Amino acid sequence: MVEISGAIIWESIEEKKGEMMLKEKYHQILEKLSSFYSFLLVTHPNPDGDALGSSLAIYHLLKEANKEVQLVYDGFLDPKLSFLLENVNYSHLSQFEFSEVEALIAFDIGDKKRIQKAIDGVKDFHPFVINIDHHASNRGFGDIDLIAPWASSTGEIVYHLLRTGEIFIHSCTATALYTAIATDTGFFTFSNTTPSSLKSASELLEMGAELAKITEHIVRSKSYALFQLEREYLNSLQFSPNHHIVWGVVPREMVEKYQVPLAQVGDFVEIPRNIDTIAISALFRDEDTPGKVKISLRSNDNELDMNRFANSFGGGGHARAAGAVVEGSLEEVVEKIIHHLFEYYEKIKKEAP
Amino acid sequence: MVEISGAIIWESIEEKKGEMMLKEKYHQILEKLSSFYSFLLVTHPNPDGDALGSSLAIYHLLKEANKEVQLVYDGFLDPKLSFLLENVNYSHLSQFEFSEVEALIAFDIGDKKRIQKAIDGVKDFHPFVINIDHHASNRGFGDIDLIAPWASSTGEIVYHLLRTGEIFIHSCTATALYTAIATDTGFFTFSNTTPSSLKSASELLEMGAELAKITEHIVRSKSYALFQLEREYLNSLQFSPNHHIVWGVVPREMVEKYQVPLAQVGDFVEIPRNIDTIAISALFRDEDTPGKVKISLRSNDNELDMNRFANSFGGGGHARAAGAVVEGSLEEVVEKIIHHLFEYYEKIKKEAP
Repeated sequence: MVEISGAIIWESIEEKKGEMMLKEKYHQILEKLSSFYSFLLVTHPNPDGDALGSSLAIYHLLKEANKEVQLVYDGFLDPKLSFLLENVNYSHLSQFEFSEVEALIAFDIGDKKRIQKAIDGVKDFHPFVINIDHHASNRGFGDIDLIAPWASSTGEIVYHLLRTGEIFIHSCTATALYTAIATDTGFFTFSNTTPSSLKSASELLEMGAELAKITEHIVRSKSYALFQLEREYLNSLQFSPNHHIVWGVVPREMVEKYQVPLAQVGDFVEIPRNIDTIAISALFRDEDTPGKVKISLRSNDNELDMNRFANSFGGGGHARAAGAVVEGSLEEVVEKIIHHLFEYYEKIKKEAP
Repeated sequence: MVEISGAIIWESIEEKKGEMMLKEKYHQILEKLSSFYSFLLVTHPNPDGDALGSSLAIYHLLKEANKEVQLVYDGFLDPKLSFLLENVNYSHLSQFEFSEVEALIAFDIGDKKRIQKAIDGVKDFHPFVINIDHHASNRGFGDIDLIAPWASSTGEIVYHLLRTGEIFIHSCTATALYTAIATDTGFFTFSNTTPSSLKSASELLEMGAELAKITEHIVRSKSYALFQLEREYLNSLQFSPNHHIVWGVVPREMVEKYQVPLAQVGDFVEIPRNIDTIAISALFRDEDTPGKVKISLRSNDNELDMNRFANSFGGGGHARAAGAVVEGSLEEVVEKIIHHLFEYYEKIKKEAP
């Protein structure tokens, strides 16, 4: 779950033009979903609720229409999302045997590079490529690019697509789309929460989205091991003198002790953000590759731009949520980055953190 | 924030009858809001987001119409809700001087006893009493009783009331009602979240509810002291052998050390509920009155009825969320209750916790 820093506001005429272009694209995509027979659905590595939810909505739709459809993912699959994959034919990219498909649909991919392996895998079959995404940074790489940066989530775009096609939405599709929208808006607390995203959620609940199941698996699914690791992280937190900056360190040994997948640690950076004095929360952890440290950064303050800060270290992201991978030992990287973070804070806010 | 165990489903004819009766009551209340001039608004002690939000919506409405209106509360006012009280004329019951009012409106009061002091305070003026609530247990004590147990929150009822009256909703009213609905549904994660509550939230956001402000104050407003206390609580947690039951203890010294108001500790019981093995979470803390211990109980399992369990100790609540106050020292009460909790679990689930 990554918070989007702010909705993009289009000028009124631009908005109208945008809407018309969008409608046209919806219809083009609906036509392709109907005319092709075999599909490969791909999402970004370590798929989150939005990537998985939006692709599964189309998966169920195509299955219902007796099409041939496969879902492939790369990286780590968070076990809390696996309830969405009941009766779904999905594979990890490393075990996947590419075969001929007529169309490849990419969901929630900000950058084509993130699915390069999948694109290479099917390139000899020259599939038609459909790119559905809500990242403003998406430059388009499909035969149809449906990019709607105003949308809370890719799931919300897919929902509008299905509504445009007046397609009957089954309970499993509704559950997948609700998961997509709810997780990408932090259960309707992030700044990308809009009247439209809440209205979509309301309609999806009416159509049978299983909220109790979603809550049970996503909100109430912390393993005992993860709880212990999280508690150790909380005990390790350090604060700047005025409690404006907080940082925590997760060394490899800590993760290995509880046998928690590294990918589950990333969200820890969100926890101390709820303290009212905190302007910046940072998390440092060993990468899979030794000698590299992954930094996650969150800002609670519009003036403190974590994307800009991360850029200086070869990273990037959004203003409110960014990250970087820096070479060095954990101790070295923490010392260096915290020093720069204090300097950056002082420069912008003209006070000591 | 207390989770409601489940929505009440009415049979179709009953539902229609219920709807008609409700419409009639909406119109009766709207007529009274218009015809009376002076109002006293009351909520339950230690008002939560729903109590405060729903009463403030009517407060702003009446002020806008140049009526005389006072808001009185009892107990502790959570500082994270005080952003709602800007430019509001409100008083603590202990400092309040009762004067003549034509109408008293009670919000979110399950039981008349909870506002007995306020009712006694105005009884010589014989005000007209309007009772608006969503607790199924509310037996009615007003001249008009608008009780809608299907509603997620009292805020949602007030929203439907304003919509029925086609009343223009200002941004501050929208913010108050959004807060009411969002807090009582645990930001749309509890089982009382309905299509209607999400639709209301969507419309309120459209009308100018300040979601960023709500999130900043309610979700991101933990004091550093409260964070430290919470961390100490996490470190004190004890688990049954199979991690099905978890309990934590907050002695008076712990609260005094960080100078956190006792009332802010109640929600701690929710934290370990997110662990996937947990069926019951219990919290024990010293009451304001020495020699008394307050117990909070939460269940993640429909078979484990905390209301029934709490009944045996003179307490009560909902199946999923209940509590009791038991005499004895903290150690004595913990030992006794945990023993009974283990027995209750074993009896219902026929296995050791």
